[in-house]
Amino acid sequence: MKVGIFLGSDSDFPIVEDAIHLMKRFGVEFGLEVTSAHRSPERTKMLIRDYEKNGVVVFIAVAGKAAHLAGVVASHTTRPVIGVPVGGSGLGGLDALLSTSQMPMGIPVACMGIGKSGASNAALLAIQILALAEPALEKKLKDYRSQMTENVKVASQKIQDKL
Amino acid sequence: MKVGIFLGSDSDFPIVEDAIHLMKRFGVEFGLEVTSAHRSPERTKMLIRDYEKNGVVVFIAVAGKAAHLAGVVASHTTRPVIGVPVGGSGLGGLDALLSTSQMPMGIPVACMGIGKSGASNAALLAIQILALAEPALEKKLKDYRSQMTENVKVASQKIQDKL
Amino acid sequence: MKVGIFLGSDSDFPIVEDAIHLMKRFGVEFGLEVTSAHRSPERTKMLIRDYEKNGVVVFIAVAGKAAHLAGVVASHTTRPVIGVPVGGSGLGGLDALLSTSQMPMGIPVACMGIGKSGASNAALLAIQILALAEPALEKKLKDYRSQMTENVKVASQKIQDKL
Amino acid sequence: MKVGIFLGSDSDFPIVEDAIHLMKRFGVEFGLEVTSAHRSPERTKMLIRDYEKNGVVVFIAVAGKAAHLAGVVASHTTRPVIGVPVGGSGLGGLDALLSTSQMPMGIPVACMGIGKSGASNAALLAIQILALAEPALEKKLKDYRSQMTENVKVASQKIQDKL
Amino acid sequence: MKVGIFLGSDSDFPIVEDAIHLMKRFGVEFGLEVTSAHRSPERTKMLIRDYEKNGVVVFIAVAGKAAHLAGVVASHTTRPVIGVPVGGSGLGGLDALLSTSQMPMGIPVACMGIGKSGASNAALLAIQILALAEPALEKKLKDYRSQMTENVKVASQKIQDKL
Amino acid sequence: MKVGIFLGSDSDFPIVEDAIHLMKRFGVEFGLEVTSAHRSPERTKMLIRDYEKNGVVVFIAVAGKAAHLAGVVASHTTRPVIGVPVGGSGLGGLDALLSTSQMPMGIPVACMGIGKSGASNAALLAIQILALAEPALEKKLKDYRSQMTENVKVASQKIQDKL
Amino acid sequence: MKVGIFLGSDSDFPIVEDAIHLMKRFGVEFGLEVTSAHRSPERTKMLIRDYEKNGVVVFIAVAGKAAHLAGVVASHTTRPVIGVPVGGSGLGGLDALLSTSQMPMGIPVACMGIGKSGASNAALLAIQILALAEPALEKKLKDYRSQMTENVKVASQKIQDKL
Amino acid sequence: MKVGIFLGSDSDFPIVEDAIHLMKRFGVEFGLEVTSAHRSPERTKMLIRDYEKNGVVVFIAVAGKAAHLAGVVASHTTRPVIGVPVGGSGLGGLDALLSTSQMPMGIPVACMGIGKSGASNAALLAIQILALAEPALEKKLKDYRSQMTENVKVASQKIQDKL
Repeated sequence: MKVGIFLGSDSDFPIVEDAIHLMKRFGVEFGLEVTSAHRSPERTKMLIRDYEKNGVVVFIAVAGKAAHLAGVVASHTTRPVIGVPVGGSGLGGLDALLSTSQMPMGIPVACMGIGKSGASNAALLAIQILALAEPALEKKLKDYRSQMTENVKVASQKIQDKL
Repeated sequence: MKVGIFLGSDSDFPIVEDAIHLMKRFGVEFGLEVTSAHRSPERTKMLIRDYEKNGVVVFIAVAGKAAHLAGVVASHTTRPVIGVPVGGSGLGGLDALLSTSQMPMGIPVACMGIGKSGASNAALLAIQILALAEPALEKKLKDYRSQMTENVKVASQKIQDKL
Repeated sequence: MKVGIFLGSDSDFPIVEDAIHLMKRFGVEFGLEVTSAHRSPERTKMLIRDYEKNGVVVFIAVAGKAAHLAGVVASHTTRPVIGVPVGGSGLGGLDALLSTSQMPMGIPVACMGIGKSGASNAALLAIQILALAEPALEKKLKDYRSQMTENVKVASQKIQDKL
Repeated sequence: MKVGIFLGSDSDFPIVEDAIHLMKRFGVEFGLEVTSAHRSPERTKMLIRDYEKNGVVVFIAVAGKAAHLAGVVASHTTRPVIGVPVGGSGLGGLDALLSTSQMPMGIPVACMGIGKSGASNAALLAIQILALAEPALEKKLKDYRSQMTENVKVASQKIQDKL
Repeated sequence: MKVGIFLGSDSDFPIVEDAIHLMKRFGVEFGLEVTSAHRSPERTKMLIRDYEKNGVVVFIAVAGKAAHLAGVVASHTTRPVIGVPVGGSGLGGLDALLSTSQMPMGIPVACMGIGKSGASNAALLAIQILALAEPALEKKLKDYRSQMTENVKVASQKIQDKL
Repeated sequence: MKVGIFLGSDSDFPIVEDAIHLMKRFGVEFGLEVTSAHRSPERTKMLIRDYEKNGVVVFIAVAGKAAHLAGVVASHTTRPVIGVPVGGSGLGGLDALLSTSQMPMGIPVACMGIGKSGASNAALLAIQILALAEPALEKKLKDYRSQMTENVKVASQKIQDKL
Repeated sequence: MKVGIFLGSDSDFPIVEDAIHLMKRFGVEFGLEVTSAHRSPERTKMLIRDYEKNGVVVFIAVAGKAAHLAGVVASHTTRPVIGVPVGGSGLGGLDALLSTSQMPMGIPVACMGIGKSGASNAALLAIQILALAEPALEKKLKDYRSQMTENVKVASQKIQDKL
Repeated sequence: MKVGIFLGSDSDFPIVEDAIHLMKRFGVEFGLEVTSAHRSPERTKMLIRDYEKNGVVVFIAVAGKAAHLAGVVASHTTRPVIGVPVGGSGLGGLDALLSTSQMPMGIPVACMGIGKSGASNAALLAIQILALAEPALEKKLKDYRSQMTENVKVASQKIQDKL
């Protein structure tokens, strides 16, 4: 278990589906839990303890509105915590973005962009951190980057064909 | 001990000075603690337990930036929790306001306005809640309102004298 | 009649349906009125008087845009007033949130989050206030919290089964 | 008494000093009151009645934060109501601007810009409305416009002299 | 021709349909033009001249995005100008609201709320201004207000019947 | 090749379709590429070199979210760079607008409005720049303006026919 | 006269001082005028005509709040118009930024960042446009860029010496 | 050299002074450079190559306004990149926060809060990442946390002594 993904609500699951796909593609073991900073504070704390015992390296916390989950996770661990703000409220996720990023001095949270692409980037950042100790993973990351660059070229060609 | 006031940081003390003055004026017993949702999560939880044992009726939580304190307090008690967002960051307190008000369904926080006047209103709302069980306090609240109305008239006269 | 719920417009009814369900579940008597701060100011004032005579303990005011209703209700009573900002305008409810939360010193409004979950939290906060004088209600609140925590675990299991 | 200026707080007086100067320059009779939508709702209502009896043509309401004053005045009269949002909170007056402008259908408020220049424009709009029935005032408005245009040219010359 | 309504684009027509209905209901003569501050500046200026010759009393300008139309109209007349910001851009009309309300000292624009209800309020404010010189119109306005209050009561009854 | 249009993603193609139509209508040669500031930084830099060799006069960069593309293009050329922020995120394009417009001193980007109309304006601004050296293009621009003014009149007539 | 700089108010002069310094450094002739979209619309139009007759290539318009000046200038010319939003209001220039950038389809404005650095970038963009026809100017721009890069290195060394 | 800190401008130095103090306190080797995404793109790229060769584990990029630096660094490396948005513009850092956090899918940036406390948290997050491979560092982090908790208690006592 290298990465612990905590969702503030089961309704956040579609946000992380691509991220989970990325984890699997890179062969990274992860655990996924629904747990709320507010509705299940003890469960959240206990899960962090359990995950730490199981060797978790990075946490990813996904939450919307007054998104306290990443901050609460960070208050219980010294492992890196990545926060993914979820939109969907009328404020487009600005509330979750500020609640996740504007952490007070002392307890950092690595805030990603809002929503699905933010969640995928959370997975990639977790993999980048794991890759520091796993050269094979770093190799995969570099291949993935090259593939992205290649995809850009293919997309460009397709657009030009439309003109 | 009727009201428990928790400050996320000692730098928030000037925000609550007027509120404390109001508490004393209304003869309401209160306790004041510095405790952080993130830097001292266990302490926060323990203080809530202790205050509940001492008969606290309402909590007031004061915090800035990604202001999680009120939400964290609310996750540990079923007593009413009033949140006061603190400004001072470049975002003028919008971050703290959204982090305090946009709580998920299930765990309410009574959000006040940003800063000193919000803190004073937190004290007044706490007193309004206490007054539900204490007719003498309700009487004082009504007198305070009358005095405010009277002050408006006096202020109006002073302005007119300037013209 | 323990809780008075005032809607600024009948179009706000869907916002409070879950809140009403919660009131009924907790066995809390409430009254529901449509009344506007601007289109029916005298009616609003008279309803407050009538509800106070009938022993109302808490008011909940629900309004959108320049949401003045909670503030106007608060100007006519010393009972606690909970404000629920309604979204739906292009600004996603930011207008209603600021109009409800940023009350001047002296007249507090307990601002909830925007929309349906804010309205449900208003009901829960009202119940928390009532529970201060009714141990049976406090018991129900604690059971409700335990149920929420349980629901989180069930939701977590369901998500894990999908993987 | 042609124009009734209501300030939500005596601290708003500096905001309207230029506006008062304009009123005097145009020879428009006005009354000035401090009265709060929230701290003195009955006084506000009574003042509107009194001003209407004295022949007031336009109201100007000046308030900050959750600036309900203009809306509350508009709820009690069918005379035109001009609202001036006041800044100074950390949100720079955005709260007051939205609370003043986003009125619900049925009760219009003529919202000005934030702060001193908004207050001066409120005076000018009031004069424009009065001028519809007073050709002499319309003449003065046109002269004032010409003077403004002339001042622009003078300012331009001064800047060019600096180069 | 008492009221001149200028739309920045023909796509803004749905925004003013209710406003036009109100004008007709109150028996107020109006003219309606599509004209752009930017795409037809000379036409805009000429239309203002023509409308003034035809005795227009108030202008209403409706525009979205960088909504300059109301300000440009106001720069060419000393008659009251009411601005209606249009939403629909991704910013929900905040751009149009700020572009309409934040006018510099000297050239006032009476800014309404965003969208259809703002446009209806523009019609009502125009009628309030016309009513200053037409007692019959003032009578109609008061009846309209009474009708609105009555409608609130009816709506309240309907909601209560649903419970 | 006079204008180089760079899209941050192929999903941005619908944003520029009208702009491309305008380019063709004005007979302006252009190239279109998909290239990302982040996923293909070397490709972006190489394309700029290639386009400069082919005599490109103006670059247009289209991107959403943390829209760095225009700034990155501008860092590699002294030709004018026009940036088009793309909306579609929950923040309505405010993120892309600020990321495109708020460039540091030294490296200007000409920021357009958000989305399709911004992209069309980018095409028109590029044509305006090209027209400085091509009188025939300036003539076409003036005709286009006259046509726009004419279209406003036609639209106005159509709306009036609906009344 | 290659560049026409229009200030909405003489109080905007400090915003453009660095820009003027840049113009002089690059040896670009410019004219500077104070003229307001609203207080001197005819003057603005006439100045544009005069500047066009004198061979102006680019306009720079500098304005705050509901910053209509750049849009109004753009409505009277087909030369490129660069808009510089000015901050200083409580909204930090967001109003001016949106009023300048969110132009409707058909009339482009090249919006810069807020304030002094935006004004300097306006000067640089104007020079980039002029440089398209003046190789000597392009040379100077490239030297300026190299100098900026050099300055970054020097600044870096200075900071490292502090450690 | 474990951590590479890149400042977009030497004026950002005060933002990182506390962060540097933390690095030294934890005994973490770091390099500090001023380099701009826009004014020195090649230098930025070269520094990344050099730092990678020297074994850098994490990059920290500090920038304001349209803060592209973190994104540009992330486009050139697969090592974790932490971005610190700088305020100080009139927008309070909202521009830099959005430019840093809203990265497109594929290239993650770990965004911190705005300003000095964000920079200190960047240092702590970098140390947390390094600590994954260095038990001694993890021990220091836990001690630092304990010290923070202790400091909260001391601060609380000091405040209580003031009452």
